[in-house]
Amino acid sequence: MPKLSNRAEKLPASPIRKLVPLADAAEKRGVQVYYLNIGQPDIPTPPEFFQAVDQSKISVLAYSHSAGNESLRQQIANYYLRLGHDIHPEQIIVTTGASEALNFVFAAITNPLDEIIVPEPFYANYNSFSLAKDAKVVPVTTHIEDNFSLPPIEAFKEKINERTRAILICNPGNPTGILYSREELEALRDLAKEHDLFLVADEVYREFAYDSSEHLSILGFEGVDQNMIVVDSISKRFSACGARIGCVISRNTELMKVIIKMAQARLSPPTFGQMGAEAAYQLPQSYYTGVVSEYAGRRDALKESLAEIPGVVCPDINGAFYAMVKLPVDSAEDFCRWMLDEFEHEGKTVMLAPGAGFYATPGQGIDQVRIAYVLNEEELRSAMKCMAAGLSAYQARAK
Amino acid sequence: MPKLSNRAEKLPASPIRKLVPLADAAEKRGVQVYYLNIGQPDIPTPPEFFQAVDQSKISVLAYSHSAGNESLRQQIANYYLRLGHDIHPEQIIVTTGASEALNFVFAAITNPLDEIIVPEPFYANYNSFSLAKDAKVVPVTTHIEDNFSLPPIEAFKEKINERTRAILICNPGNPTGILYSREELEALRDLAKEHDLFLVADEVYREFAYDSSEHLSILGFEGVDQNMIVVDSISKRFSACGARIGCVISRNTELMKVIIKMAQARLSPPTFGQMGAEAAYQLPQSYYTGVVSEYAGRRDALKESLAEIPGVVCPDINGAFYAMVKLPVDSAEDFCRWMLDEFEHEGKTVMLAPGAGFYATPGQGIDQVRIAYVLNEEELRSAMKCMAAGLSAYQARAK
Repeated sequence: MPKLSNRAEKLPASPIRKLVPLADAAEKRGVQVYYLNIGQPDIPTPPEFFQAVDQSKISVLAYSHSAGNESLRQQIANYYLRLGHDIHPEQIIVTTGASEALNFVFAAITNPLDEIIVPEPFYANYNSFSLAKDAKVVPVTTHIEDNFSLPPIEAFKEKINERTRAILICNPGNPTGILYSREELEALRDLAKEHDLFLVADEVYREFAYDSSEHLSILGFEGVDQNMIVVDSISKRFSACGARIGCVISRNTELMKVIIKMAQARLSPPTFGQMGAEAAYQLPQSYYTGVVSEYAGRRDALKESLAEIPGVVCPDINGAFYAMVKLPVDSAEDFCRWMLDEFEHEGKTVMLAPGAGFYATPGQGIDQVRIAYVLNEEELRSAMKCMAAGLSAYQARAK
Repeated sequence: MPKLSNRAEKLPASPIRKLVPLADAAEKRGVQVYYLNIGQPDIPTPPEFFQAVDQSKISVLAYSHSAGNESLRQQIANYYLRLGHDIHPEQIIVTTGASEALNFVFAAITNPLDEIIVPEPFYANYNSFSLAKDAKVVPVTTHIEDNFSLPPIEAFKEKINERTRAILICNPGNPTGILYSREELEALRDLAKEHDLFLVADEVYREFAYDSSEHLSILGFEGVDQNMIVVDSISKRFSACGARIGCVISRNTELMKVIIKMAQARLSPPTFGQMGAEAAYQLPQSYYTGVVSEYAGRRDALKESLAEIPGVVCPDINGAFYAMVKLPVDSAEDFCRWMLDEFEHEGKTVMLAPGAGFYATPGQGIDQVRIAYVLNEEELRSAMKCMAAGLSAYQARAK
């Protein structure tokens, strides 16, 4: 057989998706699975999204502009303006999800062996995307005991070397479910500027901030236009994961010239998704308020349910719709597999994402799982009862 | 400013899209542009495609399976079965266009500095996609005088070294508009097998074969399952470029295991496009016959029109919907720019893709353009009259 690439060997299986075959098998046995492994909300996509697609009345489904339809980019710019950020359509390149946005950014800023500093636990696919460019994620570990807040800036500083190209953050955090403070963000901003690094912020969960905590976009920072890159997506904001529409935002014109070349090479982002997105970006503020209030309720339900399970530790979570939770098990992955392979409670089981896959440091997170609270409160409470029953049975079995 | 990657510097501008700003400017001056630069057909997307999207009645636009919906993969498998190829759904990974398919393949089979042998002229984005992996396209030059047929197999053989990972062909050819013969393909197959290389065939124009010439898919070759990779797309087949739906097909299970990991990292291909594609793959044979007959007529119209223009050389073209055409100019790129910047004929002008961008060898193709015959016969004839007038005026100007 012809040789595969070295990166082919190194590519990790997605912690979010690698247990899918086990879940499929459980479903085939008639066991109903609560899917808390993936950030796939159950919130209906806004009807305006589908209407825009239905009413498009196009006869040829053509390539769009490589940077995305101008009309969509204008609506995205308007959305940022409402948030207080002066972003022009030419500072936006529409991508096939935030995934492609990250791929473009990594390709534009890293050479093979270059390094990107990322607080861990982090969205596992950052690792896959950097590996695809032969670049390396360098983790700065954050801890569940500290609610995953950032360590002193020196922890980042000491990771910087001549190979370092960027600091990448996800805010609000996937998988941590936390928002960074102004102090944390300003320290990163100053560090990026001082060392001439890019500061890449994945802000796809921007609106998902609870308890009156405020999300701070790096777009609001002044004097660092050359360093800032924001990655965004409509997947969570408008519950439109399947649209595959995201974007890269930067005021760095040299960077954007490079990314547009990559965008041209792949021709265009999906046309239908752009149509829907353009309508969704015109939704009133009440849409966001409604969704955020729903998720805040779910977050409360999750915290309450978890507080009742012996040995489970849930940090303070105030953003996105995830929690990295410590379980009273030695191997969360083994527990997750067992839940799908062998367990059922009233005909149901729960699928979780094993925590270790969200860390780059070996040994970190092995007793943690990521829970995506993407089901309504009632289902979520039922799922947590099911997980609690699973934990009891698993612990009893292990004895 | 933070440093960009080395590949950022090397990335070529797309020869298909780089003159778009000039065309936009021409349109703004009120000049109508015939767009023959890009393979964007004017053929209506089948109504069944749009109906499937309209009738989907989903309330949450969710991620699909990372390999694409199983129902779509089954329809794609059925389509290959009708073509005589035994392909199972698990040998298919649905991608965001053939672009993503190529990106996945290159990531899976090349390390930085590895080489892929490609007959030139070739689809320009092969270069961008290989650069994105720091791999290198090694060209084997084919010539307009030989109708771009392949040189003796020794020309490929002598390019093989320890860095060579694959031979990549596009059949029917973009930009050449030609079909490879059984002898040419079998020689490549034997060479790939002998040297343990991948043979990657971009067959997105499979149906577009004229003059009773038959397209031969490498899927029909036996005993080389480990070497074969086919890249496919619905963009041209169903005139659905904006759907962004393609796929990778291989019987090599190790390769497919790697590609599914990459597919999982980017979550899923676009959901709407998959719905439409599933309907389109169920169209009867008459759909293809109708489209191919339309393109055969356009091909004839193009050849007739070009034959009347002094100094223009058009090779024998029997596939896809492109022609690499030699123009009586020193720099086709200069001519293309001038057509958009300065020329108009009866309020119209023509946009073409400069030929040099389809070659990796410096100096090749500088007097060639790629013409995509994606307009109906009448418009195509008008566009060629306009180009002929442009050539006269350009030559007169130069004197």
